[in-house]
Amino acid sequence: MNDIKIIAFDIFGTVVDWYGSVAREVDSLDLGVRGSEFAMAWRAGYKPAMQRVASGACGWTIIDDLHRQILDELLERYAITGLDEQAKRRLNKVWHRLDAWPDSVAGLTRLKSKYTICSLSNGNIGLLADLAKRAGLPWDCILSAEVFRKYKPDPDTYLGVARIFDVAPGEVMLAAAHHDDLAAARACGLATAYIERPTEFGAEKPKDVSARPENTVHASNIENLATQLGC
Amino acid sequence: MNDIKIIAFDIFGTVVDWYGSVAREVDSLDLGVRGSEFAMAWRAGYKPAMQRVASGACGWTIIDDLHRQILDELLERYAITGLDEQAKRRLNKVWHRLDAWPDSVAGLTRLKSKYTICSLSNGNIGLLADLAKRAGLPWDCILSAEVFRKYKPDPDTYLGVARIFDVAPGEVMLAAAHHDDLAAARACGLATAYIERPTEFGAEKPKDVSARPENTVHASNIENLATQLGC
Repeated sequence: MNDIKIIAFDIFGTVVDWYGSVAREVDSLDLGVRGSEFAMAWRAGYKPAMQRVASGACGWTIIDDLHRQILDELLERYAITGLDEQAKRRLNKVWHRLDAWPDSVAGLTRLKSKYTICSLSNGNIGLLADLAKRAGLPWDCILSAEVFRKYKPDPDTYLGVARIFDVAPGEVMLAAAHHDDLAAARACGLATAYIERPTEFGAEKPKDVSARPENTVHASNIENLATQLGC
Repeated sequence: MNDIKIIAFDIFGTVVDWYGSVAREVDSLDLGVRGSEFAMAWRAGYKPAMQRVASGACGWTIIDDLHRQILDELLERYAITGLDEQAKRRLNKVWHRLDAWPDSVAGLTRLKSKYTICSLSNGNIGLLADLAKRAGLPWDCILSAEVFRKYKPDPDTYLGVARIFDVAPGEVMLAAAHHDDLAAARACGLATAYIERPTEFGAEKPKDVSARPENTVHASNIENLATQLGC
Protein backbone atom coordinates (compact mmCIF):
# COMPACT_ATOMS: atom_id res chain seq x y z
CA MET A 1 0.00 0.00 0.00
CA ASN A 2 2.93 2.34 0.68
CA ASP A 3 4.07 1.75 -2.90
CA ILE A 4 1.01 3.38 -4.46
CA LYS A 5 1.89 6.44 -6.55
CA ILE A 6 -1.01 6.71 -8.98
CA ILE A 7 -4.73 6.33 -8.31
CA ALA A 8 -6.82 5.81 -11.44
CA PHE A 9 -10.57 6.25 -11.12
CA ASP A 10 -13.39 4.63 -12.99
CA ILE A 11 -15.85 7.42 -13.72
CA PHE A 12 -19.43 6.36 -14.58
CA GLY A 13 -21.04 5.37 -11.28
CA THR A 14 -17.80 5.75 -9.29
CA VAL A 15 -17.15 9.50 -9.53
CA VAL A 16 -20.32 10.73 -11.23
CA ASP A 17 -23.98 9.74 -10.93
CA TRP A 18 -24.89 8.74 -14.48
CA TYR A 19 -28.23 7.25 -13.54
CA GLY A 20 -29.67 10.21 -11.67
CA SER A 21 -28.23 12.75 -14.09
CA VAL A 22 -29.56 11.08 -17.24
CA ALA A 23 -32.92 10.33 -15.62
CA ARG A 24 -33.38 13.95 -14.53
CA GLU A 25 -32.55 15.33 -17.96
CA VAL A 26 -34.86 12.88 -19.76
CA ASP A 27 -37.67 13.69 -17.32
CA SER A 28 -37.15 17.41 -17.96
CA LEU A 29 -37.64 16.85 -21.72
CA ASP A 30 -41.08 15.31 -21.21
CA LEU A 31 -40.57 12.64 -23.88
CA GLY A 32 -43.35 10.36 -22.66
CA VAL A 33 -40.97 7.84 -21.07
CA ARG A 34 -39.82 7.75 -17.46
CA GLY A 35 -36.30 9.11 -17.16
CA SER A 36 -35.22 6.29 -14.85
CA GLU A 37 -36.33 3.65 -17.37
CA PHE A 38 -34.68 5.48 -20.25
CA ALA A 39 -31.40 5.87 -18.33
CA MET A 40 -31.30 2.14 -17.53
CA ALA A 41 -32.09 1.19 -21.14
CA TRP A 42 -29.41 3.55 -22.48
CA ARG A 43 -26.80 2.16 -20.12
CA ALA A 44 -27.87 -1.42 -20.93
CA GLY A 45 -26.76 -0.87 -24.51
CA TYR A 46 -23.30 0.26 -23.43
CA LYS A 47 -21.48 -3.00 -22.75
CA PRO A 48 -22.79 -4.79 -25.88
CA ALA A 49 -21.77 -1.76 -27.95
CA MET A 50 -18.23 -1.83 -26.52
CA GLN A 51 -18.09 -5.58 -27.09
CA ARG A 52 -18.82 -5.00 -30.79
CA VAL A 53 -15.72 -2.79 -30.87
CA ALA A 54 -13.59 -5.16 -28.77
CA SER A 55 -14.54 -8.16 -30.95
CA GLY A 56 -13.51 -6.32 -34.09
CA ALA A 57 -17.08 -6.34 -35.45
CA CYS A 58 -16.60 -2.62 -35.98
CA GLY A 59 -13.52 -0.39 -35.92
CA TRP A 60 -12.50 1.82 -33.02
CA THR A 61 -15.53 3.90 -32.05
CA ILE A 62 -15.68 6.38 -29.17
CA ILE A 63 -18.40 6.26 -26.52
CA ASP A 64 -20.08 9.45 -27.80
CA ASP A 65 -20.78 7.63 -31.05
CA LEU A 66 -21.82 4.40 -29.32
CA HIS A 67 -24.17 6.41 -27.09
CA ARG A 68 -25.69 7.97 -30.19
CA GLN A 69 -26.27 4.58 -31.85
CA ILE A 70 -28.03 3.35 -28.70
CA LEU A 71 -30.00 6.60 -28.39
CA ASP A 72 -31.30 6.24 -31.96
CA GLU A 73 -32.44 2.68 -31.19
CA LEU A 74 -34.19 3.83 -28.01
CA LEU A 75 -35.96 6.73 -29.72
CA GLU A 76 -37.37 4.21 -32.17
CA ARG A 77 -38.22 1.65 -29.48
CA TYR A 78 -40.10 4.25 -27.42
CA ALA A 79 -41.60 5.87 -30.54
CA ILE A 80 -40.19 9.28 -29.60
CA THR A 81 -40.41 11.48 -32.69
CA GLY A 82 -40.35 15.05 -31.37
CA LEU A 83 -36.57 15.57 -31.35
CA ASP A 84 -34.78 17.21 -34.27
CA GLU A 85 -31.10 16.51 -35.01
CA GLN A 86 -29.90 19.33 -32.81
CA ALA A 87 -32.01 18.12 -29.88
CA LYS A 88 -30.75 14.56 -30.35
CA ARG A 89 -27.15 15.77 -30.35
CA ARG A 90 -27.82 17.76 -27.23
CA LEU A 91 -29.50 14.84 -25.46
CA ASN A 92 -26.64 12.52 -26.45
CA LYS A 93 -24.25 14.89 -24.71
CA VAL A 94 -26.09 14.51 -21.41
CA TRP A 95 -23.23 12.06 -20.75
CA HIS A 96 -20.93 15.12 -20.73
CA ARG A 97 -23.11 16.76 -18.05
CA LEU A 98 -23.27 14.12 -15.32
CA ASP A 99 -23.26 15.35 -11.74
CA ALA A 100 -20.47 14.24 -9.42
CA TRP A 101 -21.34 12.35 -6.24
CA PRO A 102 -21.29 14.81 -3.31
CA ASP A 103 -17.97 13.50 -1.93
CA SER A 104 -16.06 13.31 -5.23
CA VAL A 105 -14.47 16.76 -5.51
CA ALA A 106 -13.48 16.94 -1.83
CA GLY A 107 -12.10 13.40 -1.81
CA LEU A 108 -10.14 13.80 -5.05
CA THR A 109 -8.71 17.11 -3.88
CA ARG A 110 -7.41 15.46 -0.72
CA LEU A 111 -5.96 12.48 -2.62
CA LYS A 112 -4.27 14.81 -5.11
CA SER A 113 -2.09 16.23 -2.34
CA LYS A 114 -0.30 12.87 -1.98
CA TYR A 115 -0.94 10.93 -5.20
CA THR A 116 -1.17 11.51 -8.91
CA ILE A 117 -4.88 11.09 -9.65
CA CYS A 118 -6.30 10.33 -13.07
CA SER A 119 -9.38 8.98 -14.72
CA LEU A 120 -9.40 5.57 -16.38
CA SER A 121 -12.72 5.42 -18.11
CA ASN A 122 -14.23 4.03 -21.27
CA GLY A 123 -15.64 7.52 -21.84
CA ASN A 124 -13.85 9.46 -24.57
CA ILE A 125 -11.38 12.20 -23.73
CA GLY A 126 -13.68 15.10 -24.67
CA LEU A 127 -16.50 13.66 -22.58
CA LEU A 128 -14.23 13.24 -19.57
CA ALA A 129 -12.81 16.75 -19.97
CA ASP A 130 -16.32 18.24 -20.13
CA LEU A 131 -17.39 16.29 -17.03
CA ALA A 132 -14.30 17.43 -15.14
CA LYS A 133 -14.66 21.07 -16.11
CA ARG A 134 -18.34 21.23 -15.24
CA ALA A 135 -18.05 19.37 -11.92
CA GLY A 136 -14.62 20.69 -10.91
CA LEU A 137 -12.93 17.29 -10.79
CA PRO A 138 -9.26 18.12 -10.14
CA TRP A 139 -7.52 15.45 -12.24
CA ASP A 140 -3.79 15.53 -12.70
CA CYS A 141 -4.43 13.80 -16.00
CA ILE A 142 -7.38 12.48 -17.98
CA LEU A 143 -6.80 8.95 -19.22
CA SER A 144 -9.37 7.24 -21.35
CA ALA A 145 -9.81 4.06 -23.36
CA GLU A 146 -9.43 6.46 -26.29
CA VAL A 147 -5.72 6.89 -25.44
CA PHE A 148 -5.18 3.12 -25.64
CA ARG A 149 -7.80 2.43 -28.31
CA LYS A 150 -8.95 -0.47 -26.17
CA TYR A 151 -11.88 -0.63 -23.80
CA LYS A 152 -11.69 -1.82 -20.23
CA PRO A 153 -11.41 -4.64 -19.23
CA ASP A 154 -8.64 -5.04 -21.84
CA PRO A 155 -5.32 -5.39 -19.94
CA ASP A 156 -3.77 -2.71 -22.20
CA THR A 157 -5.86 -0.11 -20.38
CA TYR A 158 -4.77 -0.98 -16.83
CA LEU A 159 -1.17 -1.65 -17.81
CA GLY A 160 -1.32 1.48 -19.95
CA VAL A 161 -1.69 3.62 -16.83
CA ALA A 162 1.52 2.14 -15.40
CA ARG A 163 3.30 2.61 -18.74
CA ILE A 164 2.16 6.24 -19.13
CA PHE A 165 3.53 7.11 -15.69
CA ASP A 166 6.59 4.85 -15.95
CA VAL A 167 5.78 2.93 -12.76
CA ALA A 168 5.21 -0.73 -11.94
CA PRO A 169 1.60 -2.03 -12.09
CA GLY A 170 1.70 -2.50 -8.31
CA GLU A 171 2.29 1.24 -7.92
CA VAL A 172 -1.11 1.94 -9.49
CA MET A 173 -4.43 1.60 -7.68
CA LEU A 174 -7.73 1.41 -9.55
CA ALA A 175 -10.68 2.87 -7.64
CA ALA A 176 -14.07 1.72 -8.91
CA ALA A 177 -17.59 0.88 -7.81
CA HIS A 178 -17.64 -2.28 -9.93
CA HIS A 179 -16.09 -5.61 -9.02
CA ASP A 180 -15.54 -6.75 -12.63
CA ASP A 181 -13.43 -3.67 -13.37
CA LEU A 182 -11.41 -4.19 -10.18
CA ALA A 183 -10.92 -7.90 -10.88
CA ALA A 184 -9.48 -7.16 -14.33
CA ALA A 185 -7.14 -4.54 -12.85
CA ARG A 186 -6.03 -6.95 -10.12
CA ALA A 187 -5.22 -9.60 -12.74
CA CYS A 188 -2.78 -7.04 -14.20
CA GLY A 189 -1.10 -6.52 -10.84
CA LEU A 190 -2.81 -3.27 -9.82
CA ALA A 191 -3.99 -2.54 -6.28
CA THR A 192 -7.75 -2.03 -6.02
CA ALA A 193 -10.12 0.18 -4.04
CA TYR A 194 -13.81 -0.64 -4.04
CA ILE A 195 -15.99 2.45 -3.67
CA GLU A 196 -19.51 1.91 -2.34
CA ARG A 197 -22.17 3.53 -4.52
CA PRO A 198 -25.33 1.89 -3.19
CA THR A 199 -27.61 4.22 -5.18
CA GLU A 200 -25.84 3.85 -8.54
CA PHE A 201 -29.11 2.51 -9.98
CA GLY A 202 -31.34 4.78 -7.89
CA ALA A 203 -32.40 4.83 -4.26
CA GLU A 204 -35.25 2.44 -5.10
CA LYS A 205 -32.85 -0.28 -6.35
CA PRO A 206 -30.04 -0.39 -3.76
CA LYS A 207 -26.91 -2.20 -4.91
CA ASP A 208 -25.10 -4.80 -2.79
CA VAL A 209 -21.95 -3.01 -1.67
CA SER A 210 -20.64 -5.53 0.82
CA ALA A 211 -16.88 -5.83 1.15
CA ARG A 212 -14.91 -8.47 -0.73
CA PRO A 213 -11.57 -9.55 0.70
CA GLU A 214 -9.72 -9.49 -2.62
CA ASN A 215 -9.71 -5.68 -2.77
CA THR A 216 -6.83 -3.75 -1.24
CA VAL A 217 -9.20 -1.14 0.20
CA HIS A 218 -12.97 -0.98 0.74
CA ALA A 219 -14.21 2.61 1.04
CA SER A 220 -17.66 4.00 1.70
CA ASN A 221 -16.90 6.88 -0.69
CA ILE A 222 -13.96 8.88 -2.09
CA GLU A 223 -13.57 11.04 1.03
CA ASN A 224 -13.34 7.85 3.05
CA LEU A 225 -10.71 6.51 0.61
CA ALA A 226 -8.69 9.68 1.24
CA THR A 227 -8.96 9.14 4.99
CA GLN A 228 -7.88 5.52 4.73
CA LEU A 229 -4.87 6.54 2.59
CA GLY A 230 -3.81 9.16 5.11
CA CYS A 231 -4.72 12.24 3.05
CA MET B 1 -12.25 35.33 -32.47
CA ASN B 2 -15.61 35.08 -30.70
CA ASP B 3 -15.86 31.51 -31.97
CA ILE B 4 -12.87 30.25 -29.99
CA LYS B 5 -13.83 27.55 -27.48
CA ILE B 6 -10.58 25.66 -26.94
CA ILE B 7 -7.07 27.04 -26.45
CA ALA B 8 -4.32 24.46 -26.95
CA PHE B 9 -0.85 25.35 -25.70
CA ASP B 10 2.52 24.33 -26.93
CA ILE B 11 4.57 23.57 -23.81
CA PHE B 12 8.37 23.56 -24.22
CA GLY B 13 9.40 27.21 -24.41
CA THR B 14 5.82 28.50 -24.45
CA VAL B 15 4.56 27.52 -20.98
CA VAL B 16 7.74 26.22 -19.36
CA ASP B 17 11.39 27.33 -19.52
CA TRP B 18 13.18 24.21 -20.78
CA TYR B 19 16.47 25.99 -21.40
CA GLY B 20 16.94 27.54 -17.99
CA SER B 21 15.60 24.50 -16.13
CA VAL B 22 17.83 21.97 -17.91
CA ALA B 23 20.87 24.25 -17.72
CA ARG B 24 20.42 24.78 -13.98
CA GLU B 25 20.11 21.07 -13.27
CA VAL B 26 23.13 20.16 -15.40
CA ASP B 27 25.18 22.87 -13.70
CA SER B 28 24.15 21.53 -10.30
CA LEU B 29 25.50 18.08 -11.25
CA ASP B 30 28.97 19.43 -11.97
CA LEU B 31 29.52 17.22 -15.00
CA GLY B 32 32.33 19.29 -16.49
CA VAL B 33 30.16 20.83 -19.20
CA ARG B 34 28.33 24.14 -19.04
CA GLY B 35 24.63 23.59 -18.41
CA SER B 36 23.63 26.12 -21.06
CA GLU B 37 25.68 24.31 -23.72
CA PHE B 38 24.35 20.91 -22.66
CA ALA B 39 20.75 22.13 -22.71
CA MET B 40 21.14 23.51 -26.25
CA ALA B 41 22.81 20.32 -27.48
CA TRP B 42 20.11 18.14 -25.93
CA ARG B 43 17.36 20.21 -27.50
CA ALA B 44 19.17 20.23 -30.86
CA GLY B 45 18.74 16.46 -31.04
CA TYR B 46 15.00 16.71 -30.51
CA LYS B 47 13.69 17.60 -33.97
CA PRO B 48 15.92 15.11 -35.83
CA ALA B 49 14.81 12.40 -33.40
CA MET B 50 11.13 13.17 -34.00
CA GLN B 51 11.77 13.24 -37.72
CA ARG B 52 13.14 9.69 -37.51
CA VAL B 53 9.79 8.69 -36.02
CA ALA B 54 7.73 10.74 -38.49
CA SER B 55 9.62 9.32 -41.47
CA GLY B 56 8.96 5.78 -40.35
CA ALA B 57 12.67 5.10 -39.80
CA CYS B 58 11.68 3.87 -36.35
CA GLY B 59 8.31 2.99 -34.83
CA TRP B 60 6.32 5.23 -32.49
CA THR B 61 8.67 6.36 -29.73
CA ILE B 62 7.78 8.75 -26.91
CA ILE B 63 9.86 11.82 -26.10
CA ASP B 64 11.17 10.32 -22.85
CA ASP B 65 12.86 7.61 -24.91
CA LEU B 66 14.07 10.03 -27.59
CA HIS B 67 15.50 12.27 -24.85
CA ARG B 68 17.33 9.26 -23.44
CA GLN B 69 18.84 8.34 -26.82
CA ILE B 70 20.10 11.90 -27.23
CA LEU B 71 21.37 11.99 -23.64
CA ASP B 72 23.42 8.83 -24.19
CA GLU B 73 24.98 10.39 -27.30
CA LEU B 74 25.80 13.58 -25.40
CA LEU B 75 27.34 11.75 -22.45
CA GLU B 76 29.64 10.06 -24.95
CA ARG B 77 30.37 13.26 -26.87
CA TYR B 78 31.29 15.14 -23.70
CA ALA B 79 33.08 12.10 -22.23
CA ILE B 80 30.94 12.18 -19.10
CA THR B 81 31.40 8.87 -17.32
CA GLY B 82 30.42 9.52 -13.71
CA LEU B 83 26.70 8.77 -13.97
CA ASP B 84 25.28 5.35 -13.15
CA GLU B 85 22.03 4.09 -14.70
CA GLN B 86 19.91 5.53 -11.91
CA ALA B 87 21.56 8.95 -12.26
CA LYS B 88 21.06 8.88 -16.03
CA ARG B 89 17.39 8.02 -15.61
CA ARG B 90 17.02 10.83 -13.11
CA LEU B 91 18.79 13.34 -15.36
CA ASN B 92 16.65 12.28 -18.34
CA LYS B 93 13.58 13.13 -16.30
CA VAL B 94 14.73 16.73 -15.85
CA TRP B 95 12.29 17.27 -18.73
CA HIS B 96 9.52 16.36 -16.24
CA ARG B 97 10.77 19.05 -13.85
CA LEU B 98 10.83 22.19 -16.01
CA ASP B 99 9.86 25.44 -14.33
CA ALA B 100 6.90 27.39 -15.67
CA TRP B 101 7.42 30.96 -16.89
CA PRO B 102 6.31 33.36 -14.13
CA ASP B 103 3.06 34.34 -15.91
CA SER B 104 1.95 30.83 -16.94
CA VAL B 105 -0.13 29.70 -13.96
CA ALA B 106 -1.89 33.04 -13.50
CA GLY B 107 -2.57 33.42 -17.23
CA LEU B 108 -3.87 29.89 -17.68
CA THR B 109 -6.06 30.19 -14.59
CA ARG B 110 -7.70 33.31 -16.05
CA LEU B 111 -8.15 31.72 -19.49
CA LYS B 112 -9.68 28.61 -17.91
CA SER B 113 -12.61 30.67 -16.62
CA LYS B 114 -13.81 31.27 -20.19
CA TYR B 115 -12.17 28.60 -22.36
CA THR B 116 -11.28 24.95 -22.25
CA ILE B 117 -7.50 24.95 -21.99
CA CYS B 118 -5.29 22.01 -22.89
CA SER B 119 -1.73 21.19 -23.78
CA LEU B 120 -0.79 20.18 -27.30
CA SER B 121 2.82 19.10 -26.99
CA ASN B 122 5.16 16.56 -28.44
CA GLY B 123 6.00 15.66 -24.85
CA ASN B 124 4.50 12.36 -23.70
CA ILE B 125 1.47 12.26 -21.44
CA GLY B 126 3.37 11.26 -18.29
CA LEU B 127 5.91 14.03 -18.81
CA LEU B 128 3.16 16.63 -19.29
CA ALA B 129 1.26 15.38 -16.23
CA ASP B 130 4.40 15.59 -14.10
CA LEU B 131 5.14 19.13 -15.35
CA ALA B 132 1.59 20.22 -14.62
CA LYS B 133 1.47 18.70 -11.15
CA ARG B 134 4.81 20.18 -10.13
CA ALA B 135 4.17 23.66 -11.54
CA GLY B 136 0.42 23.82 -10.83
CA LEU B 137 -0.61 24.22 -14.47
CA PRO B 138 -4.42 24.06 -14.33
CA TRP B 139 -5.20 22.17 -17.56
CA ASP B 140 -8.71 21.05 -18.32
CA CYS B 141 -7.09 18.26 -20.30
CA ILE B 142 -3.60 17.09 -21.23
CA LEU B 143 -3.30 16.39 -24.93
CA SER B 144 -0.07 15.05 -26.36
CA ALA B 145 1.33 13.73 -29.60
CA GLU B 146 1.13 10.41 -27.74
CA VAL B 147 -2.68 10.51 -27.99
CA PHE B 148 -2.49 10.87 -31.78
CA ARG B 149 0.72 8.86 -32.26
CA LYS B 150 1.88 11.63 -34.56
CA TYR B 151 4.25 14.47 -33.78
CA LYS B 152 3.54 18.11 -34.51
CA PRO B 153 3.55 19.51 -37.16
CA ASP B 154 1.50 16.55 -38.47
CA PRO B 155 -2.03 17.88 -39.23
CA ASP B 156 -3.53 14.96 -37.27
CA THR B 157 -2.35 16.63 -34.06
CA TYR B 158 -3.97 20.04 -34.66
CA LEU B 159 -7.12 18.57 -36.19
CA GLY B 160 -7.09 15.98 -33.41
CA VAL B 161 -7.75 18.72 -30.84
CA ALA B 162 -10.87 19.77 -32.75
CA ARG B 163 -11.98 16.15 -33.12
CA ILE B 164 -11.44 15.35 -29.41
CA PHE B 165 -13.63 18.29 -28.38
CA ASP B 166 -16.13 17.89 -31.24
CA VAL B 167 -15.67 21.44 -32.51
CA ALA B 168 -14.64 22.97 -35.83
CA PRO B 169 -10.90 23.67 -36.37
CA GLY B 170 -11.71 27.41 -36.35
CA GLU B 171 -13.02 27.05 -32.79
CA VAL B 172 -9.54 26.00 -31.61
CA MET B 173 -6.65 28.40 -31.02
CA LEU B 174 -3.06 27.22 -30.77
CA ALA B 175 -0.87 29.33 -28.49
CA ALA B 176 2.86 28.90 -29.08
CA ALA B 177 6.16 30.73 -29.01
CA HIS B 178 7.22 29.21 -32.35
CA HIS B 179 6.13 30.40 -35.77
CA ASP B 180 6.55 27.01 -37.47
CA ASP B 181 4.12 25.37 -35.02
CA LEU B 182 1.61 28.20 -35.52
CA ALA B 183 1.93 28.06 -39.31
CA ALA B 184 1.13 24.35 -39.35
CA ALA B 185 -1.90 24.92 -37.10
CA ARG B 186 -3.09 27.79 -39.30
CA ALA B 187 -2.87 25.56 -42.37
CA CYS B 188 -5.36 23.27 -40.60
CA GLY B 189 -7.78 26.14 -39.99
CA LEU B 190 -6.92 26.88 -36.36
CA ALA B 191 -6.64 30.38 -34.93
CA THR B 192 -3.16 31.21 -33.64
CA ALA B 193 -1.68 33.18 -30.74
CA TYR B 194 2.02 33.98 -30.76
CA ILE B 195 3.49 34.19 -27.27
CA GLU B 196 6.70 36.20 -26.90
CA ARG B 197 9.42 34.28 -25.08
CA PRO B 198 12.48 36.41 -25.82
CA THR B 199 14.67 34.48 -23.36
CA GLU B 200 13.73 30.97 -24.53
CA PHE B 201 17.42 30.38 -25.35
CA GLY B 202 18.71 32.40 -22.42
CA ALA B 203 18.99 36.10 -21.67
CA GLU B 204 22.32 36.20 -23.51
CA LYS B 205 20.75 35.02 -26.80
CA PRO B 206 17.54 37.06 -27.13
CA LYS B 207 15.06 35.70 -29.70
CA ASP B 208 13.35 37.88 -32.31
CA VAL B 209 9.78 38.10 -31.05
CA SER B 210 8.45 40.73 -33.44
CA ALA B 211 4.82 40.41 -34.47
CA ARG B 212 3.77 38.70 -37.68
CA PRO B 213 0.45 39.70 -39.23
CA GLU B 214 -0.64 36.14 -40.00
CA ASN B 215 -1.31 35.35 -36.34
CA THR B 216 -4.73 35.99 -34.85
CA VAL B 217 -3.21 37.36 -31.64
CA HIS B 218 0.28 38.50 -30.63
CA ALA B 219 0.76 38.42 -26.87
CA SER B 220 3.69 39.42 -24.70
CA ASN B 221 2.96 36.48 -22.38
CA ILE B 222 0.07 34.27 -21.24
CA GLU B 223 -1.35 36.85 -18.82
CA ASN B 224 -1.41 39.31 -21.69
CA LEU B 225 -3.19 36.71 -23.86
CA ALA B 226 -5.84 36.41 -21.12
CA THR B 227 -6.25 40.19 -21.08
CA GLN B 228 -6.60 40.38 -24.86
CA LEU B 229 -9.20 37.60 -24.79
CA GLY B 230 -11.24 39.39 -22.13
CA CYS B 231 -10.48 37.04 -19.23
